[in-house]
Amino acid sequence: MRIIDRVLAAVDRVAPPHVAHAHCDLPCGVYDPAQARIEAESVKAIQQKYNDSNDEEFRTRALQIKEERADLVKHHLWVLWTDYFKPEHLEKYPQLHELFWKATKSAGESKKTTDTAVGQRLLDEIAEITTIFWETKKG
Amino acid sequence: MRIIDRVLAAVDRVAPPHVAHAHCDLPCGVYDPAQARIEAESVKAIQQKYNDSNDEEFRTRALQIKEERADLVKHHLWVLWTDYFKPEHLEKYPQLHELFWKATKSAGESKKTTDTAVGQRLLDEIAEITTIFWETKKG
Amino acid sequence: MRIIDRVLAAVDRVAPPHVAHAHCDLPCGVYDPAQARIEAESVKAIQQKYNDSNDEEFRTRALQIKEERADLVKHHLWVLWTDYFKPEHLEKYPQLHELFWKATKSAGESKKTTDTAVGQRLLDEIAEITTIFWETKKG
Amino acid sequence: MRIIDRVLAAVDRVAPPHVAHAHCDLPCGVYDPAQARIEAESVKAIQQKYNDSNDEEFRTRALQIKEERADLVKHHLWVLWTDYFKPEHLEKYPQLHELFWKATKSAGESKKTTDTAVGQRLLDEIAEITTIFWETKKG
Amino acid sequence: MRIIDRVLAAVDRVAPPHVAHAHCDLPCGVYDPAQARIEAESVKAIQQKYNDSNDEEFRTRALQIKEERADLVKHHLWVLWTDYFKPEHLEKYPQLHELFWKATKSAGESKKTTDTAVGQRLLDEIAEITTIFWETKKG
Amino acid sequence: MRIIDRVLAAVDRVAPPHVAHAHCDLPCGVYDPAQARIEAESVKAIQQKYNDSNDEEFRTRALQIKEERADLVKHHLWVLWTDYFKPEHLEKYPQLHELFWKATKSAGESKKTTDTAVGQRLLDEIAEITTIFWETKKG
Repeated sequence: MRIIDRVLAAVDRVAPPHVAHAHCDLPCGVYDPAQARIEAESVKAIQQKYNDSNDEEFRTRALQIKEERADLVKHHLWVLWTDYFKPEHLEKYPQLHELFWKATKSAGESKKTTDTAVGQRLLDEIAEITTIFWETKKG
Repeated sequence: MRIIDRVLAAVDRVAPPHVAHAHCDLPCGVYDPAQARIEAESVKAIQQKYNDSNDEEFRTRALQIKEERADLVKHHLWVLWTDYFKPEHLEKYPQLHELFWKATKSAGESKKTTDTAVGQRLLDEIAEITTIFWETKKG
Repeated sequence: MRIIDRVLAAVDRVAPPHVAHAHCDLPCGVYDPAQARIEAESVKAIQQKYNDSNDEEFRTRALQIKEERADLVKHHLWVLWTDYFKPEHLEKYPQLHELFWKATKSAGESKKTTDTAVGQRLLDEIAEITTIFWETKKG
Repeated sequence: MRIIDRVLAAVDRVAPPHVAHAHCDLPCGVYDPAQARIEAESVKAIQQKYNDSNDEEFRTRALQIKEERADLVKHHLWVLWTDYFKPEHLEKYPQLHELFWKATKSAGESKKTTDTAVGQRLLDEIAEITTIFWETKKG
Repeated sequence: MRIIDRVLAAVDRVAPPHVAHAHCDLPCGVYDPAQARIEAESVKAIQQKYNDSNDEEFRTRALQIKEERADLVKHHLWVLWTDYFKPEHLEKYPQLHELFWKATKSAGESKKTTDTAVGQRLLDEIAEITTIFWETKKG
Repeated sequence: MRIIDRVLAAVDRVAPPHVAHAHCDLPCGVYDPAQARIEAESVKAIQQKYNDSNDEEFRTRALQIKEERADLVKHHLWVLWTDYFKPEHLEKYPQLHELFWKATKSAGESKKTTDTAVGQRLLDEIAEITTIFWETKKG
């Protein structure tokens, strides 16, 4: 368990679940990049499990479930890009378009491969988006 | 901004997105009660916006979107209940069945009302589940 | 055709389709465990066909379709558990929570195996639920 | 036949829920017109509840849920028409095309109205289909 | 590039996207057989790619995606058949029922095979439907 | 009927349905902006019908169906943006990111309003995308 995990676990112990990370300024106005991240963790975990297994049935199922999970990553990222981010965010973070384009392309690529490096790259790109997202919340 | 939010925001600034809160030992093995919580926050936010608005079109749309979000809450909770929790967890937390039953019933009830107290009760029940979830992770 | 099927077919001939088996007092108020049963029959049939076939394409498709059908079983059972059953039913049938938990777990397990014994166990558990369901209707 | 089957068969004779009506001769080969019927019962029940209510929120939700249920009726009927019925059935029941066309059109019409007469007509048409369906099973 | 493609490309260059090919007099009143055709082209393309590949992972994914695309073909055709076509069309084109039945059966068959001849037959049947569709628009 | 419609109708009469407008080099490799355009036409048509009607039930249903159609517009546009367009296209059409961002935002906005001007703006933005799309096909 990494240090940061311990810290978070400690914090969680105090008051984990109520914490509303995400606020809302639109009709369905609650956004949280965690939705994309959780599905992307699933994608990478499936890639790993696929590589660790010799069971043909298991591997066939893994490919199918990975397809669905990667689709959910794309969906959650697209929603963030179109629905959450505003022109003023773009001005401050001009890399946003390219970042989302690459991240959703990585999600697509992670359907086509069981290389966990692609799953990890996807997680890294979502991490970049997450950092920007929370910075805009502090603004 | 509450103290706990500041602490979390501070922690997030250091290394927010990589943190894999959730691991599991099953094929699609990543679980995180945050999925249910995020949708439940949306449910409560929509209830609030419904009450704050006089626009009939907006209110019709709010009812529809609330229906979908509450459905997602139920789905995420059901998945946790059936897929994540094991007999050994039940032994330690005998209240789990009742807790999930009530929480999913609250999600159903939050479709039928725009009373934010029901949305809040749903969030509280998810908070209870979340606490237990993370305790089983520390085990 | 088994005897019982003939008997039922005879019964059906008299008044099959109008019969509204299930009514309820809620907005989408029609419940019927037949929905879960039909999908579970599909799951078991696909397990059998998978085992009877040597065609790789067919088997790949069978695994995929089984995944979807088992998901539908879980969904229909979860809806019954949360939406149909009430505290007074729980009092009379205290085994309900455990029964639904096991049945939905069996549905999950039937994704991971092509052993028809698991499909049959799932059907048996749905049969138990069905018996209780119709008893509560007679109450 | 196991004891439990006999007991269930006895129960079934009163109100036959357990019965495996449907057999399978195709990859996902389990068909049962009960799937369409159950959703159509829901459609008609919602029309009735809509008419019995003065609550605007309830009525808005009823319209939305009716839309979804009527869609499911159409889906289940289309699947029966295309996937289950074969040219030899058409020869024997030349009215099948027209019957399915009318029934799916009634399902569409039941979206547009809260007149329970349309919901009942839909149920009657599904009853006709059901009778033919079970006759082809006896063949 | 065939002559007809060039002509269409030329026409497209002038004013392609505004052209509203399809209108109708019902609530969701826009129909266009292009929706079924595009998915059917995808089905045939996947069959071809499946045959051209030796990569087991790719082929497993191809089977899965083909299943989904063929399902969309069926859905779009069913919607046209039930929702767009009216009794007066049937009178003028009495072959409509049989044509849609065959086309949706071909879509189902194209799930079960990677023979591009089946994909092409499906496209041909959709072409027949498309011709009739646009003739009814000129009426 | 505008001239261009007549020309297209004439062309359609010769060989409409076989024409495979779109091919690609990826697994589900068929793209066509017509998919987004057809749904956007539906969005605008529903806005018009909403405004032309006084029937409360009809208007409630219109709002709901518009929501779904606008969602499909977003989905089809996102798929084009992430899956079809490549870095070399971006180099030649540097406006692509902004164009897709605006178009998907217009789709979102068309959920929130029944002003057909928003529906038309969405169609215009899809037209721009379509022109670029077909230019990249000629390359």
